[in-house]
Order: sequence, then structure tokens, then C-alpha cells
Amino acid sequence: MEINVPSTSKKRVVIVGCGFAGLELAMQLRNTDYQVVLIDKNNYHQFQPLFYQVATAGLEPSSISFPLRKMFRKSPNTFVRRTTVEKVDTDSKTIMTPIGNLNYDILVVAIGADTNFFGNENIASRAIPMKSVSEALYLRNSILEDFEKSVTTPDFEERQGLIDIVVVGGGPTGVELAGALAEMKNYILPKDYPELNCEEIDIYLMQGADCLLKGMSPESSKAAEAFLKEMGVQVRLNTRVEDYDGKFVFIQGDEKIRADKVIWAAGIIGNQLQGIDKKYTTYGNRIAVNRQNQVNGLRDVYAIGDIAYMEEEDFPKGHPQVAQVAIQQAKNLGKNLKRDLKQKARKDFKYKDLGSMATIGRNKAVVDLPKFKFKGFFAWIVWLFVHLRALLGVKNKLFVFLNWVWNYFTYDQSLRLIIKPFSKRKKAENE
Amino acid sequence: MEINVPSTSKKRVVIVGCGFAGLELAMQLRNTDYQVVLIDKNNYHQFQPLFYQVATAGLEPSSISFPLRKMFRKSPNTFVRRTTVEKVDTDSKTIMTPIGNLNYDILVVAIGADTNFFGNENIASRAIPMKSVSEALYLRNSILEDFEKSVTTPDFEERQGLIDIVVVGGGPTGVELAGALAEMKNYILPKDYPELNCEEIDIYLMQGADCLLKGMSPESSKAAEAFLKEMGVQVRLNTRVEDYDGKFVFIQGDEKIRADKVIWAAGIIGNQLQGIDKKYTTYGNRIAVNRQNQVNGLRDVYAIGDIAYMEEEDFPKGHPQVAQVAIQQAKNLGKNLKRDLKQKARKDFKYKDLGSMATIGRNKAVVDLPKFKFKGFFAWIVWLFVHLRALLGVKNKLFVFLNWVWNYFTYDQSLRLIIKPFSKRKKAENE
Repeated sequence: MEINVPSTSKKRVVIVGCGFAGLELAMQLRNTDYQVVLIDKNNYHQFQPLFYQVATAGLEPSSISFPLRKMFRKSPNTFVRRTTVEKVDTDSKTIMTPIGNLNYDILVVAIGADTNFFGNENIASRAIPMKSVSEALYLRNSILEDFEKSVTTPDFEERQGLIDIVVVGGGPTGVELAGALAEMKNYILPKDYPELNCEEIDIYLMQGADCLLKGMSPESSKAAEAFLKEMGVQVRLNTRVEDYDGKFVFIQGDEKIRADKVIWAAGIIGNQLQGIDKKYTTYGNRIAVNRQNQVNGLRDVYAIGDIAYMEEEDFPKGHPQVAQVAIQQAKNLGKNLKRDLKQKARKDFKYKDLGSMATIGRNKAVVDLPKFKFKGFFAWIVWLFVHLRALLGVKNKLFVFLNWVWNYFTYDQSLRLIIKPFSKRKKAENE
Repeated sequence: MEINVPSTSKKRVVIVGCGFAGLELAMQLRNTDYQVVLIDKNNYHQFQPLFYQVATAGLEPSSISFPLRKMFRKSPNTFVRRTTVEKVDTDSKTIMTPIGNLNYDILVVAIGADTNFFGNENIASRAIPMKSVSEALYLRNSILEDFEKSVTTPDFEERQGLIDIVVVGGGPTGVELAGALAEMKNYILPKDYPELNCEEIDIYLMQGADCLLKGMSPESSKAAEAFLKEMGVQVRLNTRVEDYDGKFVFIQGDEKIRADKVIWAAGIIGNQLQGIDKKYTTYGNRIAVNRQNQVNGLRDVYAIGDIAYMEEEDFPKGHPQVAQVAIQQAKNLGKNLKRDLKQKARKDFKYKDLGSMATIGRNKAVVDLPKFKFKGFFAWIVWLFVHLRALLGVKNKLFVFLNWVWNYFTYDQSLRLIIKPFSKRKKAENE
């Protein structure tokens, strides 16, 4: 069976994955002489930098997600198909999906990366990842459910397991999440659970390296650590989590910590696409590409974003796996494809570092710009502004902004609801 | 095991269920000389009149849900416990739950009603109910997923199954939902799915009786029918749905309609509480109570809201199962319990009909007040205002209002996202 997409004389670009890279490329190719088919397992683009606020009940999933169909309404050359990709055949230039096959002239792999559990099955099956809005929602529900349980749990050890949270990984995700959890502990939980001694809640941030936020400046990483400690987070540097049995986290060197919830943000690994042979991939399962994001050794196949591994003069070991690289690579590829249409020469990709930032709590953020660094309230305002600006859709911007203003002045995120869509199958089983 | 609630000299009122009735009673008893334990399977109160807007992607679940703990923060005599009730023992005055047992001095049953499938197992297991925010979310996901599928379904019959929707039941839920679906068809789907011929979408509203909105005036019920027809809904009066095999809806008299989605809003039946014997219940599984909502024949047990059946002069067959009755009964019971504390005489319940209303679409609503009736734009404004006012929480009011304003001017509900919380179990199985 064929996927139902019109046959035209236009070259067909199939983009697999709709994160920052895939989406930006599709926007570049809107209303051009390419036919664009955008494939994603979700019908929306998700704004990853704010997942941690969904997890801590500060924002709704819908506020940081944007429907793909809405984005491409006025672009008749773009077709959105919600499906997974089972396999790619780069010889016959076909992708296989559960809803049918599709030929491509140009394939762009923008499938991103997922949580890396470094082969530890115990951790993989028990720790909570944070690489999708669904996972963030799951974490939110788990936190709220465990606090509800803790109120009726008289046993001290058991209660500690329910209320303590271990975050593993001192990158931006881990730091921002630990900060947001500390704010929940400091401002919200004492009001919601007067019966609970909130002093008993421990939030741990475990970092294998000797500093937090390794990609940032030493000043910012020190500042982030100081902010977190000030807020009551137990920051442990040079600490490796070795195992997790669902009740105890085992730390290298004989220590163990009781926690029913471990959030794993300690690393990522490139997603796999069946049909792209292992020989094309390199460190961290990334696909090796040339300076124009073309997969080395494959005709008409490109890779962009977190999944791509490109060596540039200043980045001999590849670029950092961050949104800015993904967006800039997609822009460059989009322009090159448009240059092809006009038979102009392509240009090589060159990453322009716009800086990096992380927020730790209210009035507390760190910003590294290429020329200078700053922290505190002003950094926090810059962080808010940059993220609002990057969010897709006027309504999302408005609602996120209102939520932030509301939360700032009331010290209260009011989304502490354990809502799960009803499952029809489950219902049928019960009856 | 005992549920962890402090023992005091105060009388303990246990309220089971936190709909309009249970919540109102708990609010009446805030900071009184009763200890109040509020039990619900959710940690939030849900605003049922707007479920249909969640189902049609107009509002977020969080906008119409309110966290219980937040409500009772400043009320140290109130304890919220999120659990189900397994059984009640009215002799020993104990309730049994998965998190332990609890003694009561006064038990208030406010467990409401659920969808009535009238014993048809086929319909029960396949049709979609609309009695919780989770079910509304499930309906939203089903609608959006089926439209995605329809785009790649070349077979006409199969596509009809995916895009046609049958709503069964011409009460307020059915009417408001059918209207909202028609607006989706008219304003939103043609923009989102330019590849689809939206003329092919059929929305059916099946009503067994000879008019819609049976509780309202003949004028309003006629007006609602006219509004719906104008918007393109196929309204079928005197039409009984007899069966549903998941593909075809079987209508009395040999007709069948292909539809993968059937929404069942054709009736409700009182929820059951193990330990309250059948002999205390009457029509529609409602618990028979006296004029003070005391269960006939049981000491210190009360029933309020949809689950209660009380005969009043003007209502010889019981009150309509609507929010206003629930709220007024809870108020009266709350006042009576407070009168008990002061050794004052109790008062009988008397229902004051404040009128009823239903909205069909933008600028289209019907309102019946005790003295007069009206319809159209002004009725619609009144409907919006009354519902906003009834919503709990300033933030919910603000966000719902902003959503309505946004949707009104953009003709666009932007929440068309298929988001499901990630399931850890599922993840473990896949690996």
C-alpha cells in the first residue's frame, strides 16, 4: 500500500521527525517547488526546553505543544502524516510505515535523540525519562500521586521513598528540574500538605562530573550550584549512580538512597532508523554527515539536529546536541535545497554560538553570551524572554506568559491535577 | 489499617464523592466544629457542564478542574483523601478503602451517577461515554486520531467510518456536543485537512423522544433543534439506537449507520456503593432520602446530588439530576448539620428552580428562566457568564474566558493535540 500523497512533478522531500530541526526545515521549504512530506509520531511539535515546567505542574502540555497541521495550513506543498517509520530502503529510495510506503527524492533524518540509560536495564525500566511531553506528564502524575500516598503512610522509611526525589544528571534538564522541584517544596507543598513535614522532603541532584552545566562557563556552573544549594537541593558532584532497584538508588562507593522516583537526565543517545546501517553512525549513535548535512556514503539522504554528527573546525568532536545547532543546520539545509532549485552552489554549515542559559528558580538564572556572562534576576528575565520568543504560536506565547505572571505573583502553580485519559480497553476489561 | 486522620473530640463527617454536591457540603462545613474527611478518586473537582468543550479541543482539562487540596488549604478541620471506597458498614459506622478503614459519625454519600448503557454490553464496551474529564479527553484523542487516519484512507466506506460521528441522547450533553462538533466541521477541519472533503463528514444526533432537551420549554427545544439543523447536524427524533458492533450503529427499524465513534449520552444511572443495600435504592439506582436528605432506614447516613432520590410536592418523581439540585441539597444539609451543633431545628429541603440553559454554538443558546425564555446571541452571552461564574478559581475563570475570547475571534480552537501520558509499563515491555 502507498501512503496517500499526490504524485506531482515536484521533487519529494520526506522529513522524518518534527523536533526543532525537522520543523525548521519544513518551514524553510513552505511554498517552494518541493513537495514536502513531514512524518512524526505525534500531531504536534513539542517545545523541549519547557518540559520540566510541565513535570512540575507549572505549565500545561498544550501550552508548549503546537499542532503541525495548523502550521502548514497555508502551504499546499506540505503534507503532514502522523505515523512511525518502520524501515528505510535507501536503494529503492522508499520509506515503510504502518500506513503504507512512500518514495522520496530526498530523505531528511531528523529523528533526534532519546534518553541514554547506558545499557542498565534496571534503570531503564524504573527511572523516569524526560524527553517528551508525555514523559513529563507521567512524572507530574507520579509526583502528585506519591504525595497523596505519603499523607496516609505512617511508616517513616516508606514515606521518605514517596517524597524524596533523585535527579540524575547535572545538565540543563537536571538543573532546571531540580530547581523547580525545590520551589515546589519551598512554596507550594507546605500549603497543600499541612499534614506533612515538608522539611522531610529531600531533592538530590547527582552529577558524575566535577561541575554542573558542563557546556557553560565555570562562573555560570558555580553560580547554578550555589543557587540550587541556597534553595535546599542536595547537589552531589563526582557522584555516579550505578543502579536502581525501584526502592534504592545505589551510588558508586557503597551509599544507597531510598527513593521511589528517580529522574534520569544523565545522557542522550541518537534514535535509530531501521535501514540506516550501523556503519553510517558514530559516537552516541549519531549519523556522520558532511558539512552540508549529507549522510556520508548515502545518496540523497541528509541528517540534521541531535541525530547528526558533523565535524567543524571549532567542533572537531561534533556540535553540542542543542536546539540552536538543530535550527541552524535546518536553515542551512533548507537554503541549500532552495539553491539547488536555482542551480546555485551550496554553502557549508557553520555554527554560530548564540550563547546558552539555564534557569534555576524565580529570579535565578545564568546566561553565557559569547562576549559576557551574567546571572540573577536580569538573567532570569532574559531567559523568560528568549523562551517566550522561541515558542510557536501567539496563543501559546500568551498563555505561557500569563501562567508565568500568575505563578510569579501567587507563588502557586495551580495545575496539580492527576488527569489521565480514560482507556476504553481498561473499561471493557473491568466489566 | 486505619486511614491516617487525627482523632479529635469533633464529630467526623465523611463525604464520599466530590462533585457539585460533595464539594458544596465540604465548603459549608469549612472551619466548623465537625471534622470533615472528603474522599474522591481524583485529587480535583471537575466541572461537568464544560466536558464537551474539552472533548472538542476548545478547553484544556486543567481549565475546568480544580485541585481539592488548594480549596481546603485554610480549613484545618478538612482532610482530603484520594482513594476509592470498597465498602461501607453502616452498623459499625466504618468505610473500607484500599488505604485503610475509617470510622464516621455522619456519612454523606455524594457519589453521583454514571453513564447508563441500559444493559447493552456491546454499546457499553464500544461507545464513548462523557461523564468525566478523562473520558472527554479520550473522545478528543479518538476524534483527532481518526481524522489523521482518514487522510490516508482511500476506501470511501472506511473513511466514512472514521469521520462520521453519532451522538446518542438529546439532552444537554448530546445537544451541546453535537453543536460543538458541527462547529469543528464547519470552521476548523476544512482548514486543518484541506485534503479531506469536509462535506463528507456527517454528525448525527439520535434522540429517542419526540423532542430535544426534554427538561426545557417546548420553545427552547424547538429552537435548539433549528439551530442544530442550521449548523448541519442530522437531528433524528423518535430514533432508538438498538445496538453497536463497533462499525455499524443499528437503529430501530432496520437502518444502520457506519461510524467508528459513537458517543453515548442517552441516560445516567446512580453509582453503587457496596454496603448500601439495594432495598434503599429506587428508580435509576438512586438512594431514597427524606426531606433532609437522610437515607430512609439508615442512621446517620445521608445522600445528596444525583444519587439522591427525594419526593417533594412539586417533584413527586424526584428532582432532575442537575447541578443546581446537587448544590442546593448540599447547602441545606450543611446548614442543618450546623443547626445540629447549635441544637436548633433542622429545615426541609425545597428546590428553587433557577432555570436551565443550553448552548448550541457561537451566538446560539437557549435559556429558560422561571418567568421568561429567550434564545440567540443574548442567551449565549448569559450562558457564558453563568458558566464562568460557576467555575472554581480565579485562574480557571481567567483562562477559560481568554480561551473563549480567543476561539471566538480566531474561529480556531488550538488544542488539537493528541497527548497521552507516557506509560512506564509500556516502555518496559517495548525494550
